Amino acid sequence: MAQDMTLLWGSGSPPCWRVMIALEEKKLQGYNSVLLSFDKMEHKSQQVLDINPRGQVPSFKHGDIIVNESYAACFYLESRFKSQGTKLIPDGPEEQALMYQRMFEGLSLYDKLGAVIFYDYYVPEGERLESALKRNKETLVTELKLWEGYLEKLGSGSYLAGKAFTMTDVVVFPTVATAFRFGLSAERYPKLGAYHALMKERPSIKASWPPHWLENPKGQDTLKDI
Amino acid sequence: MAQDMTLLWGSGSPPCWRVMIALEEKKLQGYNSVLLSFDKMEHKSQQVLDINPRGQVPSFKHGDIIVNESYAACFYLESRFKSQGTKLIPDGPEEQALMYQRMFEGLSLYDKLGAVIFYDYYVPEGERLESALKRNKETLVTELKLWEGYLEKLGSGSYLAGKAFTMTDVVVFPTVATAFRFGLSAERYPKLGAYHALMKERPSIKASWPPHWLENPKGQDTLKDI
Repeated sequence: MAQDMTLLWGSGSPPCWRVMIALEEKKLQGYNSVLLSFDKMEHKSQQVLDINPRGQVPSFKHGDIIVNESYAACFYLESRFKSQGTKLIPDGPEEQALMYQRMFEGLSLYDKLGAVIFYDYYVPEGERLESALKRNKETLVTELKLWEGYLEKLGSGSYLAGKAFTMTDVVVFPTVATAFRFGLSAERYPKLGAYHALMKERPSIKASWPPHWLENPKGQDTLKDI
Repeated sequence: MAQDMTLLWGSGSPPCWRVMIALEEKKLQGYNSVLLSFDKMEHKSQQVLDINPRGQVPSFKHGDIIVNESYAACFYLESRFKSQGTKLIPDGPEEQALMYQRMFEGLSLYDKLGAVIFYDYYVPEGERLESALKRNKETLVTELKLWEGYLEKLGSGSYLAGKAFTMTDVVVFPTVATAFRFGLSAERYPKLGAYHALMKERPSIKASWPPHWLENPKGQDTLKDI
């Protein structure tokens, strides 16, 4: 049990979801879970600012130790609870190298996805350009095809860094799930679709599925044509 | 010696520089160092594409193991050569938490710096907007002030994650040095200026200083007024 841990989070935020999956995998259930509303701007509340001067979630505290960046929190949890729950960093040098490589490529995937699905959020109304959004979509397609190729090469039933579930899945799966939530076609991206389906059955993913996606299972169709 | 390692890199690229510092700190001199020219588009050459399908540097190979993402390569090197050279990940949970936290915040600093100094590179000519560049500058100032505050709190002579040099310095210093190269004022940002001066004396930094900065010590003045 993890009663000395507090996580402030928002539903559907991939960075928050990463930390939630890590907590589940490391058998750290029972933490103080504080769900905040982005619509009500609660991520800018004093409660968040007290932990995180950036006014962002996730904001995460373990005793007096604060680790807010999602990748940082995942590394921290794996390091502190190495022998508890799922081992997230493999021992073999090759497996480890691939795990690190893909988890950091995952940041590119996240950025490129965000530049399409959150375009209107990032770019003020008067500055939005069809040409820029079109380019962002092309960049995202190139990125998605890279990942489709990675999975193809690893063979069916694989996780993102090989035959075993690793930290890469913890941090990158929320981005993949978000792409499908925003209408990505599993027919056009069958390997990513199969990976998405595989992961959805995993207990840590089920336990941390965004509550507003559960309430309203139908997502957007922003990505249906890419 | 590291004759079974190859690093393809470009002068002045912060991601490349991170890996070079890690190699120096881990006493892995003697690797096969291949300096490529961005002007000649050599980072898109077959030599790079053979290792890195993204056509980016750094591209890094150790025997048959490929790790191209700069943060991934630094983690990999620390893990493979744990007891060699500088210990980059501290043992204490608090020190480790701060190290992870700041190294990932370092990605925000890097992105926000790039959105100003590489604005014309990222945004095609017809799409550039004064309003966007102005906002990017404001965002960068807020970010720089955060880091100035972090260093202030740690006290003089500190590294980015405390009294000891860590992986955070390996990955974030190149961004700080780039900010000063582009004209950041050490008078307006005295803590960052002192950190920059401290790090410039470190052997790993001297050994990896961008060659075209050495040839032409005068940088740009893009950031002089922020």
